[in-house]
Amino acid sequence: MTPHDTGLLSPVRAGTPAEEATSDTAWVQAMLDAEAALARAQARLGSVPAEAAAVITETAAAGPPDARALALASRETANPVVGLVAAFTAAVAERDAAAAEYVHRGSTSQDVFDTGALLVAARTLRLVRDDLRLVADALGRLAAAHRDTPAAARTLALQAVPTTFGLRAAGWRQLVLDAEERVGRLLDDGGLPVALGGAAGTLAGYLEYARLAGEPDLGSYPERLAALFAEETGLARPAAVPWHALRSPMADLAAVLSLTAGALGKFALDVQNLTRTEVGEVAEPAVAGRGSSSAMPHKRNPVLATMIRTAALQVPAFALVLTQQLLAEDERSAGTWHAEWLPLRECLRLVGGAARTAVELAEGLEARPARMRVNLGLTGGQMVSERVSAVLAPRLGKAGAKRLLTELVAEAARMGRPLADVLSADPRLAGILTPEECAELCDPERYVGGAGAMVDAALTRGD
Amino acid sequence: MTPHDTGLLSPVRAGTPAEEATSDTAWVQAMLDAEAALARAQARLGSVPAEAAAVITETAAAGPPDARALALASRETANPVVGLVAAFTAAVAERDAAAAEYVHRGSTSQDVFDTGALLVAARTLRLVRDDLRLVADALGRLAAAHRDTPAAARTLALQAVPTTFGLRAAGWRQLVLDAEERVGRLLDDGGLPVALGGAAGTLAGYLEYARLAGEPDLGSYPERLAALFAEETGLARPAAVPWHALRSPMADLAAVLSLTAGALGKFALDVQNLTRTEVGEVAEPAVAGRGSSSAMPHKRNPVLATMIRTAALQVPAFALVLTQQLLAEDERSAGTWHAEWLPLRECLRLVGGAARTAVELAEGLEARPARMRVNLGLTGGQMVSERVSAVLAPRLGKAGAKRLLTELVAEAARMGRPLADVLSADPRLAGILTPEECAELCDPERYVGGAGAMVDAALTRGD
Amino acid sequence: MTPHDTGLLSPVRAGTPAEEATSDTAWVQAMLDAEAALARAQARLGSVPAEAAAVITETAAAGPPDARALALASRETANPVVGLVAAFTAAVAERDAAAAEYVHRGSTSQDVFDTGALLVAARTLRLVRDDLRLVADALGRLAAAHRDTPAAARTLALQAVPTTFGLRAAGWRQLVLDAEERVGRLLDDGGLPVALGGAAGTLAGYLEYARLAGEPDLGSYPERLAALFAEETGLARPAAVPWHALRSPMADLAAVLSLTAGALGKFALDVQNLTRTEVGEVAEPAVAGRGSSSAMPHKRNPVLATMIRTAALQVPAFALVLTQQLLAEDERSAGTWHAEWLPLRECLRLVGGAARTAVELAEGLEARPARMRVNLGLTGGQMVSERVSAVLAPRLGKAGAKRLLTELVAEAARMGRPLADVLSADPRLAGILTPEECAELCDPERYVGGAGAMVDAALTRGD
Amino acid sequence: MTPHDTGLLSPVRAGTPAEEATSDTAWVQAMLDAEAALARAQARLGSVPAEAAAVITETAAAGPPDARALALASRETANPVVGLVAAFTAAVAERDAAAAEYVHRGSTSQDVFDTGALLVAARTLRLVRDDLRLVADALGRLAAAHRDTPAAARTLALQAVPTTFGLRAAGWRQLVLDAEERVGRLLDDGGLPVALGGAAGTLAGYLEYARLAGEPDLGSYPERLAALFAEETGLARPAAVPWHALRSPMADLAAVLSLTAGALGKFALDVQNLTRTEVGEVAEPAVAGRGSSSAMPHKRNPVLATMIRTAALQVPAFALVLTQQLLAEDERSAGTWHAEWLPLRECLRLVGGAARTAVELAEGLEARPARMRVNLGLTGGQMVSERVSAVLAPRLGKAGAKRLLTELVAEAARMGRPLADVLSADPRLAGILTPEECAELCDPERYVGGAGAMVDAALTRGD
Repeated sequence: MTPHDTGLLSPVRAGTPAEEATSDTAWVQAMLDAEAALARAQARLGSVPAEAAAVITETAAAGPPDARALALASRETANPVVGLVAAFTAAVAERDAAAAEYVHRGSTSQDVFDTGALLVAARTLRLVRDDLRLVADALGRLAAAHRDTPAAARTLALQAVPTTFGLRAAGWRQLVLDAEERVGRLLDDGGLPVALGGAAGTLAGYLEYARLAGEPDLGSYPERLAALFAEETGLARPAAVPWHALRSPMADLAAVLSLTAGALGKFALDVQNLTRTEVGEVAEPAVAGRGSSSAMPHKRNPVLATMIRTAALQVPAFALVLTQQLLAEDERSAGTWHAEWLPLRECLRLVGGAARTAVELAEGLEARPARMRVNLGLTGGQMVSERVSAVLAPRLGKAGAKRLLTELVAEAARMGRPLADVLSADPRLAGILTPEECAELCDPERYVGGAGAMVDAALTRGD
Repeated sequence: MTPHDTGLLSPVRAGTPAEEATSDTAWVQAMLDAEAALARAQARLGSVPAEAAAVITETAAAGPPDARALALASRETANPVVGLVAAFTAAVAERDAAAAEYVHRGSTSQDVFDTGALLVAARTLRLVRDDLRLVADALGRLAAAHRDTPAAARTLALQAVPTTFGLRAAGWRQLVLDAEERVGRLLDDGGLPVALGGAAGTLAGYLEYARLAGEPDLGSYPERLAALFAEETGLARPAAVPWHALRSPMADLAAVLSLTAGALGKFALDVQNLTRTEVGEVAEPAVAGRGSSSAMPHKRNPVLATMIRTAALQVPAFALVLTQQLLAEDERSAGTWHAEWLPLRECLRLVGGAARTAVELAEGLEARPARMRVNLGLTGGQMVSERVSAVLAPRLGKAGAKRLLTELVAEAARMGRPLADVLSADPRLAGILTPEECAELCDPERYVGGAGAMVDAALTRGD
Repeated sequence: MTPHDTGLLSPVRAGTPAEEATSDTAWVQAMLDAEAALARAQARLGSVPAEAAAVITETAAAGPPDARALALASRETANPVVGLVAAFTAAVAERDAAAAEYVHRGSTSQDVFDTGALLVAARTLRLVRDDLRLVADALGRLAAAHRDTPAAARTLALQAVPTTFGLRAAGWRQLVLDAEERVGRLLDDGGLPVALGGAAGTLAGYLEYARLAGEPDLGSYPERLAALFAEETGLARPAAVPWHALRSPMADLAAVLSLTAGALGKFALDVQNLTRTEVGEVAEPAVAGRGSSSAMPHKRNPVLATMIRTAALQVPAFALVLTQQLLAEDERSAGTWHAEWLPLRECLRLVGGAARTAVELAEGLEARPARMRVNLGLTGGQMVSERVSAVLAPRLGKAGAKRLLTELVAEAARMGRPLADVLSADPRLAGILTPEECAELCDPERYVGGAGAMVDAALTRGD
Repeated sequence: MTPHDTGLLSPVRAGTPAEEATSDTAWVQAMLDAEAALARAQARLGSVPAEAAAVITETAAAGPPDARALALASRETANPVVGLVAAFTAAVAERDAAAAEYVHRGSTSQDVFDTGALLVAARTLRLVRDDLRLVADALGRLAAAHRDTPAAARTLALQAVPTTFGLRAAGWRQLVLDAEERVGRLLDDGGLPVALGGAAGTLAGYLEYARLAGEPDLGSYPERLAALFAEETGLARPAAVPWHALRSPMADLAAVLSLTAGALGKFALDVQNLTRTEVGEVAEPAVAGRGSSSAMPHKRNPVLATMIRTAALQVPAFALVLTQQLLAEDERSAGTWHAEWLPLRECLRLVGGAARTAVELAEGLEARPARMRVNLGLTGGQMVSERVSAVLAPRLGKAGAKRLLTELVAEAARMGRPLADVLSADPRLAGILTPEECAELCDPERYVGGAGAMVDAALTRGD
């Protein structure tokens, strides 16, 4: 078989569990799992013989038919389910011809595809959640270890005021926990429902078979069938009207995948900027051979961060395709439904790959406090000008204080002198600040605000 | 003043309350509200005199300075807050020079801008929520009234099986309730927090002023200040680490706005397709002059649906810009933060306009059951082929039944005869189905599955 | 090997030549082709021995190493080239150890990857261009055959005025020719250049090896090497500064792929709407088994149009990722470059699949003039109200005429009477229009404007 | 009037000529210009009296009606043209009742809106082109001045090999010229055509009036009218089939706007990274008050680059909306057309604002060669490891050389010693490289490859 896509163009997920969990094979298997669950649910309601459901379940468990053949066949019907049902029915029939009558009974392609898709999503998101947890744990350890490690905070590309490396790590962790929380809400609070509508959302086919099987209470049958189908798959119960063309579950999924990719991407982006040769405050875990360049022997590229950022640069646009398909016409769209499939998989495996990669990055990230201190000293204390300004405000007025500081900072910069010296030397401050006070006020390490307390508060979350 | 944007290019929101709630003026006012709330919060903690906070609050309530002047000034600093603080400080000083010392104390542009932005968002989303509720109510009435009105369900552009107009309306309503739920979660469950970080996220400035004011417990000050600031604004408390560069609140907002636009857009899109001259199952509310064409006297264009769809075609792409800015570098980005502002406003006012327009559409939508019945009859009963297939399955096997039906349906189509007649005439069905049974089976109105029960179930939600 | 992606989720390209042309295998081969072309170009300049270049070329032609192994290895370096160069060097060494010294000489991963990527793009776009030509030809035949077939034009979902089916087909063709033209411009006018920059865009490595090989004119070497590299690959010469981080070629490619997808998508979308059960003006080519539903025997879904539209719904968002990577930092980005790869492939194979599918659709599309006429009659001549309005304008004034027509059209609609009859009966028109004139004016087939002439003019293009 | 949008949220364009050129007022004026041009074109063909066309032209030149009133009225028809035509007709009638009969004759809203929109686009793009030219000139001067100024090239966040600041500036300029070229192609090579189709693309209304006016050659009338309309507006002639629902002109415009924003954004992004406190190789032009922070007296934020980048982060997503509307159904879409308007304006004014801002940035950018040299020395010569590797390859084999260099570079880094010293001291290189050769080879300033020649070549373009 030609390897159409084995990860060559997407290193972030090559070889990760998420890639496996979203492969064509996994997808076909999930659709078979949906077929089997549906048969069992119908069996529990008496509209399918229990033996038939058992054979259908066994056959589904025996593994999926060849995905490539289904892909090729899908061109005739614009979806792979018609071919899958044919192949699966034949496979069931080989075991038990009678059971084959009950395959896909009353069902429609979209019930099977969407349920299968959300099974794939749920399986992948469980991997993602585990990895987000590991990332958060590692970042939590970093934050705790560097609770009081001073470092320069940067805004609009420039050093702004001091902060701590711990607060920075706690911030990364906070975003990761935001992602974990949203993933968990999808998984645990009904975000991933089964699809059950039949040909066009009325469940008429299911009901017809139930009627023929003598079902006494057709009125409550839809709700009962949906509940049991959900139970058999492990997915959530759907809302009252089938979601064939009401795609909020897909939009919610898109939102969570985007946010997760972005949360990991923020961490990666900061790591890259902190890794810059001129900054050097962190380094990726050193692994032999890792990060080497095809041309330059001296480089150790931040490849983990690069791969994670790559995912973050792609996922939101792919997820957009999902969100836009809320605009689905009629009871089943001729195209918007089909447009979701590929971007959904890419989002899942990119996020899965990024989360796995982020575990490696977070667990191995090397912080360099010495370099942080060096950088913190680069501006000769100018970074605390805000503080001096505040201290002088009661004496000079807020505006006057800021004006004076602006002038003295400019002078310090022009002369290349520490701000403390310039302050001490300025006649306008004589009698207001002693040289000792100037030195203390200008020590960046003493001006980290509430960083420590905030790290402590942040670490109480998600433990 | 040149009218740069008065709604000319965006009829969906022209003149709606959401447009007003998101105007430059409203935005400036919201930022002043944030400044005032911050002063009051600091006053409650003793770091600002109560009188100063009172004057600041009064001045803020007296109305915003000229937005255009702030816009022009913003080019010097890449944000409008620096100019606003200057103008506001001057305005406070006119009332009370001493109070002016306490304006924007310890604060940073982003604290004020982001808090102001979320105030605008909250105010607009409350309008949206009210309108979504009205839309849902109107659609609920439609669903109830047409619980049993048969209509053709359409999949992949073709009539598929029968459904009811009530189920269709219940589906639209379900999506609208999904949107309302998510909007409500943002508004009520902490989705829209104040921003409070100071220059670079450590709250150092706020703390320095508190220290100078003699604050005894600096350790807990950040958390207390955030809580009171939230209380004074009516927004939620923020997470432990300031969200200057941790943008999950913005990503969540983007997700909800996209979903809401899409939910309303689905309704509009279906209305358009049902309005098509050849379909004619619904009509927009007739209003004199509404929907007229500049060229064609006979047309009554579905303009409400068109405007709503317009919003749905734009919002997800604009919201994407918000989501992508999760990739914000450092403690404050030089650009990703600024890139959020315009798309956020457009999303808010497009969604607000669409929701308001949808109220008009839903409340006035004219359903045409007679035309639905005519359309239902167009295929001569072929739409129930699924049902006949199910009924025959026990006798002919599922595959055999489907094969036979495919053949007979093709014959019915070719001959232009009702399916019931073709079934009755087919020798292979002699002794299996009587002509009466054929007629009954082929009556589309008797094959609406669980539509009625599903409408009932759907209507219990959100009441 | 696990089939990670064999087309299961993307029927539009499953089994098409474009899928093959963009497979991992094809991509690896293209990168080897780039390595070989580079060696030959260097050989022509004397910096690599001719024999070595020959061995390198032979080895490249012998086929690519296992793509999956490269994919897995790529995690160490965030790109697959480092592993490929190692594997390829070993393969060359097996033939000739001396030649292996000259593999990838002076080069960098991005030179090889980008050149390979544009080779893949060029190869795929040639397939696309051929298919666009076939689509245009088929649509041209349709336009010519139906030059004078009257049909209803629709605007804002409603029948507007008459048109011809020929004009509609000519419009589809025009968009397809627009796409073909832009694809051709990329292919023939320098849109797809080789990448040649060395480690960071100065070509220093290439020059160093040239210097060591005794190259006398280092000043002109970069330009000569680029020209020969282009010649050996068949791609275009690059601009003076290497495009490693100056991504206009990628943005141009993104634009052309988006436009092509959209052009085909417009055709597909119209086909779907014209296929609607209630419209029925066209049908997809009838092929046994094609378009069948898993549940409904009577349906023949417009699957070709659905697949094409699916591509059109995805490509612009994927292409957006390419365009956004213009924002690449430094001399090579840590992530934006890598984020291009996957979306580029998806765009190429979606467009390629859509073009191939559109050939089938255009060549087999069944037009139904009889149904067009029926639909044209649905409004009883109201569609020509614009015309009657124009005719009456000189007598009643433009506004007066429009007002009167609006009134009479409303009456015709309310009474269900043909507009001609209402006009004839109206006392205000007595003496202005005879009943014969009314009938003639209201005949939609006589009000197709310049449709015929426009079809003729349109068909002169692209022949 | 409430200032709904005066630039408060979009500093990049506040007060720029592009903002003015795209205001609601400018848009209305452009639509009036289209109406007047249409009347003149019809007059030249004899279907409208010359006097009427003159009065229409005068009235249009007298200025636009109130945009806000049109915006509010647009809700009745989902577009502002119906109201505009009514107001304009009344204004013409005030001058000459007879002339008023000829306003908008045979026309449709879309003809006027689209022609007006492209007039706005053309006017704005001319401003953009002028500014791009100025940016390119300024960058050309920088490139020439720093043709030989050595600097560190950076790839994947790390210093890679030496380059020159001139080559970097030449690269920025190359992208800007790419943008200018594409803007020019739109403006000069037919990229911005008039729209002329009448009610539904057949020109039937125009032809009917021409027929009533006694036009002898109706067959060629459409083409002649289009040509004259184009001439009167200064826009290009359209393709044979009206582009009401064939939106390649809009997609082309979207592509050019995206590329231009990205080209400017790349320049801005690099400026930001080079401005970082730890890098300091460039600074924005110093202007009193510019770049100040609301909190920190010592900062001079790179605000010009920030504003430009802001545009680049938004435009591609807004432009995506344009591209996606290629999927327009029927002869005029009920929504996709309308969805283009707002994003088109935003793209135009963001790009226009970014271009204007980039002129300021490029003309005032301060390069700091001394700091570049300091940074170049940070790695102690490791950056030339590629070169030493090449030099040793003939002796040690390519792989052997790279392996040795990797080892020695690691040693240099570990010991904090210059690479040259480590090379000199290594026994394995004794007899291969003298200390002098080591020193020379390791001098980064001598390893800038073809940078100088490439700058020269680059500067020949666009002069």
